[in-house]
Amino acid sequence: MTLINRRSVTIEWGDCDSAGIVFYPRYFAMFDWSTAMLFAHALGMRKPEIVRRYGIVGIPMVDTRAKFLVPSSYGDEVVIESRVEKFGRASFEVYHRLLKEEKLAAECWEKRVWVARHPDDAMRIKAVPIPEEVIAKFQAAG
Amino acid sequence: MTLINRRSVTIEWGDCDSAGIVFYPRYFAMFDWSTAMLFAHALGMRKPEIVRRYGIVGIPMVDTRAKFLVPSSYGDEVVIESRVEKFGRASFEVYHRLLKEEKLAAECWEKRVWVARHPDDAMRIKAVPIPEEVIAKFQAAG
Amino acid sequence: MTLINRRSVTIEWGDCDSAGIVFYPRYFAMFDWSTAMLFAHALGMRKPEIVRRYGIVGIPMVDTRAKFLVPSSYGDEVVIESRVEKFGRASFEVYHRLLKEEKLAAECWEKRVWVARHPDDAMRIKAVPIPEEVIAKFQAAG
Amino acid sequence: MTLINRRSVTIEWGDCDSAGIVFYPRYFAMFDWSTAMLFAHALGMRKPEIVRRYGIVGIPMVDTRAKFLVPSSYGDEVVIESRVEKFGRASFEVYHRLLKEEKLAAECWEKRVWVARHPDDAMRIKAVPIPEEVIAKFQAAG
Repeated sequence: MTLINRRSVTIEWGDCDSAGIVFYPRYFAMFDWSTAMLFAHALGMRKPEIVRRYGIVGIPMVDTRAKFLVPSSYGDEVVIESRVEKFGRASFEVYHRLLKEEKLAAECWEKRVWVARHPDDAMRIKAVPIPEEVIAKFQAAG
Repeated sequence: MTLINRRSVTIEWGDCDSAGIVFYPRYFAMFDWSTAMLFAHALGMRKPEIVRRYGIVGIPMVDTRAKFLVPSSYGDEVVIESRVEKFGRASFEVYHRLLKEEKLAAECWEKRVWVARHPDDAMRIKAVPIPEEVIAKFQAAG
Repeated sequence: MTLINRRSVTIEWGDCDSAGIVFYPRYFAMFDWSTAMLFAHALGMRKPEIVRRYGIVGIPMVDTRAKFLVPSSYGDEVVIESRVEKFGRASFEVYHRLLKEEKLAAECWEKRVWVARHPDDAMRIKAVPIPEEVIAKFQAAG
Repeated sequence: MTLINRRSVTIEWGDCDSAGIVFYPRYFAMFDWSTAMLFAHALGMRKPEIVRRYGIVGIPMVDTRAKFLVPSSYGDEVVIESRVEKFGRASFEVYHRLLKEEKLAAECWEKRVWVARHPDDAMRIKAVPIPEEVIAKFQAAG
């Protein structure tokens, strides 16, 4: 079984554009934090602790796609459900569903990499293998 | 031949996250405005005039995907090249290439709809046919 | 006694900049929504209903100041306490305190106006008197 | 004479809210980058080089105030004029004027600190004296 993180988000005035609906880049910010919360849920520690514990810089996005089916507006409450679809060696895939009044309103696919400072150049970053402990904790939590 | 809008964007401090690289939702905001500028370029009027002239609310996103190949940081200057790939009846597709020092650093695909207020309910929006004049101006400008 | 709205906010990855602390414009977005929640609390309806019921466009900012005393980072949980300091004829003042582990980490003063569409020009906005009902509800809720 | 940095900014769709005018936290992001450009102008190097050269983490805000006099909307072109008002030992003050069609549309005051990593704790930051070279370059450029 797969661990799913479920959280509720209120759409704010500042999330919406002149058409009165969510400016879609804001959805990506919501999905980004949903992924952070999914990892916090599975690993039992918040993102800053994950970053310190595993010596990473972050989990930057390399490929993401989203479909927007039903618009939302400020004051709306939506639910985001997130799960890891697949772990690769140094990358992983996440899938998010955004529900509005229990109907699918948006979905998002992410491919991210597990990234550390480059050993030869602190200004650069480098994909590194995802620790087995991380993958095991996801399996145990699912 | 296809009309390509080319613009230069400076990555700002506020575009970057704790890893020191662009927070990827900010790229979507850049691509969004690149699409607005592409239409302004083709139609010879800025987005607010387009909205008024054609009686639309906007051109909301229904499906978008982006790949991030090379990270950028504040102070970097990047170039975004944008073009319409295809016009449908009420929807259209846009493709963006983001170049850093002439190398492909990110790319993005968009599917958007041409949207007006719903005739029966001003709180809702509704896809409407893209005017032939709009498509013709893109062809003439290409 | 004065009505105080208290809410908890988790600092997200995308709220932080390259220095690893909250990019301060994000605090203003948090304070903005805190004011919306304060009004929702006092009036017993969410912001979109307030906008419709009183026929306003919004409550735009005309003057705001914030002091940032203690930095926060992603994963931190902060509390924002908000209250109206004063109601004028068409404007009002709000004060926010942001607490981190019960210590004052930021404070913000706002002056906003109660604004409707201009009767002679739908493209313009115009300050209008705050309804007595609104002020009375704040007093009753305090 | 005082060095003034002048730059032109186009208001984007994503800068505006449901009232169709700039969501004011976005102005603070514009002012933030105007300060970065003012320093780049005076010191003859971009912000990432300034950060590296002087060993700082950034120039975080401690106190800022803005007045918004005339609203702007997407497609509008505005001009931001920025200057340092005063250099203290470890802090400095900046003043911005935002002009729309040559009329004052917003103004902003900032107090920022010159900040480095804390010598005893890399997770903390600490105000440090502004190098005399920095102040001298501002005087020479004015």
